[in-house]
Amino acid sequence: MMHLHEVLNLMFWDSRTGAPQKGLAMRAEVIGTISAKKFAMSVSPEMKDYLEALTAEGSEAYLSPITREVVASVKKEFDRNAKIPQAEFKAYTIVKANAGKAWEAAKSASDFAMFQPHLEQLVSYNKRFSEYWSDQGHPYDALLDVHDPGMTVEQLDDVFAKLKARLIPLLSRVKQEKTVADTSFLFKRFPIAVQKELHHFLLQELGYDFQGGRLDETVHPFAIPINRNDVRITTRFVEDDFKSGLFGTIHECGHAFYELNIAEELIGTPLCCGASAGIHESQSLFWEKLIGRSQAFWHRYYPQLAAHNKEQFTGIEKTAFYRAIHAVQPSFIRIEADELTYPLHVILRYELEKALFADELKVADLPGAWREKMAEYLGITPPDDRAGILQDMHWSAGMFGHFPSYALGYLYAAQFRHAMIRELGPIDPLVENGDFAPIRAWLARNIHIHGKRKTPHELLLDVTGEPLNPDHLINYLEKKYQAIYQLDSFE
Amino acid sequence: MMHLHEVLNLMFWDSRTGAPQKGLAMRAEVIGTISAKKFAMSVSPEMKDYLEALTAEGSEAYLSPITREVVASVKKEFDRNAKIPQAEFKAYTIVKANAGKAWEAAKSASDFAMFQPHLEQLVSYNKRFSEYWSDQGHPYDALLDVHDPGMTVEQLDDVFAKLKARLIPLLSRVKQEKTVADTSFLFKRFPIAVQKELHHFLLQELGYDFQGGRLDETVHPFAIPINRNDVRITTRFVEDDFKSGLFGTIHECGHAFYELNIAEELIGTPLCCGASAGIHESQSLFWEKLIGRSQAFWHRYYPQLAAHNKEQFTGIEKTAFYRAIHAVQPSFIRIEADELTYPLHVILRYELEKALFADELKVADLPGAWREKMAEYLGITPPDDRAGILQDMHWSAGMFGHFPSYALGYLYAAQFRHAMIRELGPIDPLVENGDFAPIRAWLARNIHIHGKRKTPHELLLDVTGEPLNPDHLINYLEKKYQAIYQLDSFE
Repeated sequence: MMHLHEVLNLMFWDSRTGAPQKGLAMRAEVIGTISAKKFAMSVSPEMKDYLEALTAEGSEAYLSPITREVVASVKKEFDRNAKIPQAEFKAYTIVKANAGKAWEAAKSASDFAMFQPHLEQLVSYNKRFSEYWSDQGHPYDALLDVHDPGMTVEQLDDVFAKLKARLIPLLSRVKQEKTVADTSFLFKRFPIAVQKELHHFLLQELGYDFQGGRLDETVHPFAIPINRNDVRITTRFVEDDFKSGLFGTIHECGHAFYELNIAEELIGTPLCCGASAGIHESQSLFWEKLIGRSQAFWHRYYPQLAAHNKEQFTGIEKTAFYRAIHAVQPSFIRIEADELTYPLHVILRYELEKALFADELKVADLPGAWREKMAEYLGITPPDDRAGILQDMHWSAGMFGHFPSYALGYLYAAQFRHAMIRELGPIDPLVENGDFAPIRAWLARNIHIHGKRKTPHELLLDVTGEPLNPDHLINYLEKKYQAIYQLDSFE
Repeated sequence: MMHLHEVLNLMFWDSRTGAPQKGLAMRAEVIGTISAKKFAMSVSPEMKDYLEALTAEGSEAYLSPITREVVASVKKEFDRNAKIPQAEFKAYTIVKANAGKAWEAAKSASDFAMFQPHLEQLVSYNKRFSEYWSDQGHPYDALLDVHDPGMTVEQLDDVFAKLKARLIPLLSRVKQEKTVADTSFLFKRFPIAVQKELHHFLLQELGYDFQGGRLDETVHPFAIPINRNDVRITTRFVEDDFKSGLFGTIHECGHAFYELNIAEELIGTPLCCGASAGIHESQSLFWEKLIGRSQAFWHRYYPQLAAHNKEQFTGIEKTAFYRAIHAVQPSFIRIEADELTYPLHVILRYELEKALFADELKVADLPGAWREKMAEYLGITPPDDRAGILQDMHWSAGMFGHFPSYALGYLYAAQFRHAMIRELGPIDPLVENGDFAPIRAWLARNIHIHGKRKTPHELLLDVTGEPLNPDHLINYLEKKYQAIYQLDSFE
């Protein structure tokens, strides 16, 4: 099954990095065959027999600790899949395929009504699935557990409430600031061939090993493990917005570091992957935001950046550059949001999903609820469905419970950073010297090496000594933006 | 099985075009898993049942003509595989793996003795296989049949004798010529980025569709069908020998045209491939040699070539260029041989293989026999084993019966060209105008579209009206070299 996984990932990578257009229809069939085969193996009678034998009373004594964990992990997936009646799962696959197409058409026409019946079906299937999976707690908990094992509405409500309580006031103070950074110079022409050179240079500085990976171009950047020793990243190059690709590359490099440092003893097991979507995101955001957007980083690398495109950066001071890349501007589109508003975009989606699955909100009422929350959190209202409720593809693919990972990743990253500094001392001097090895090593030995052996909660406890605590992110953001905008002290 | 075939080809392509080094060991395991799975399916009891049912008396009436041919093709492979005892096949796989490593070491040390015991084993396994497969004709026939269905020692002896009888005298006349073309300018610096541009330009001129393929770089050029609508080619770029990559690219383009033009109704069947190794080679050689090395081709494209690298070609006349790329120089290495000496390299290997399998030659006596034949056919004697008997990897991989394809391809190509001209009229004017569409269309409708539905012999009869006839190649070469070297007329 892990070998089929490598095959699937390679086909995914190839399909997006340059497979000839005309071959993609046949490629899709091959992906279908191999995915179906892998799924069939995961729920086969043979697998059932294995699991029964391996979890029978007394059998534990014969298994190594890792094998026990592998069995538990496979059993969890087996139980989850086996609980859905086969006919229902098949019907759901078709509903999803149609929903994907309907969402594309609806987004293009900016008309939620075209997508609504599909979304209603998707929600209703996922409601039933969550009932099959669990009869305890909030109906949304079972969906959260798929993406971040152990996460619950109860925890998220608490954490997100604290985030909102301090981010929204911070945001409104920032918005009142009169000194608006000049960002116009960021959007000048930066030849793509030179951007490529710069990305390769920075990846090598960060410690990405091109003997164990490669950088390619795609419409949306991603990182993908082909196997434990071959983790590839992709980026996009926008000629008049170099930031877009640059921070994308650093982000994906963070994902790649994770997969490249999982303990070798986990190779070939389903534990040879990240602990959860949220923990994975913590690694990419750590590098993209906490390192790649730090003053220390640009203290060292701004001269290098400027040297790669003199026309663009001559006469621009390092500080002006740093302020420009931190300009805060509430916007409609999540993936274009700045560091400060981004978590609010995610919380909005979380609250809507939670309400849907608790039957407190109807699909038909989503667009209205969306507009209200945008106004409340960000002070803006989307002009249409395309810039509002139809912007993300997740729901059309039946991905409910996944959005929180994007905010969790940020929270985890800040909490890990706090623990790292406690252990290593201030990391800014390391970054200023381009000495990333101790940082990489800390992340590898505390987080990466464990693969999926620990839940996010266990990782947090073991690494930071406390459960999820939003104060770390809030303190980090307050301190950072206070310095940038020279705000008065906060209450 | 065809889907697994796509997966295997993609992994092969990826492993050679830029997969990170460190991931290749795990990749090899995945390739092993998928290959083994595909092989197991091909000889499974299930396959046996299918074949019995589909070939049972009376069942033919229910099958479409194509399905009947598919069944026959699958049955042929099934019978071939099933005749080898499983344990023997497994042992042979190990022998091959060891032989590959031993050949590499032996070649590097230029010491045949290190490879000899492995080669003896490989020959003895293949002798037994050929006995399992057939008890009729020459023992080498069964091996020839694997690579060129229907080909026999009897036919090849006759054809190669005719070739030798006229090529060897032609070669010795050419060697006596006093006017030796200046070739030194061919080996000047040609920046690789500009070579790439040139290759893309020429591929587009020839009609290679980048929506259905792509060009990458590898150590050895190849063409590979990922699927019927995605056939990729690779080349190598040598900075001070632009010819190497250029003719390589045109060669692989010829292979790609074949796979891209097989009838759509054959997609998903084992007939969706070339008729044989020899027929495939006829398509690549047709484009590389009969088109790409023609005077008409360079009449049109020499100015384009020269414009891509003015420093190299300024002051060099078109005719001088044409003569230079046709300089004949007997050399030790087959893959570096010119048009005229190449078939003799192949015939040499054929004669040695045939003698081995007829028990007329011992493996231990191969190096001596090699030297004798090199002296007889080419007038030179290799200084060591590396430049002689150890140069090719084929034997180390157990590939016996494959070498003749390289000469057959050339013979087929010339015979097809003769038929094409009979039907279309002279093709030089088309080439001079860069009007390759009628040539591509002729090859597609006469050869490509049939995939593996016809044997090479059937194809030759249907397309050219006669069985394999070496006169076409001989006449072509005599005429061409007579013009280049202004030789006296031949007897």
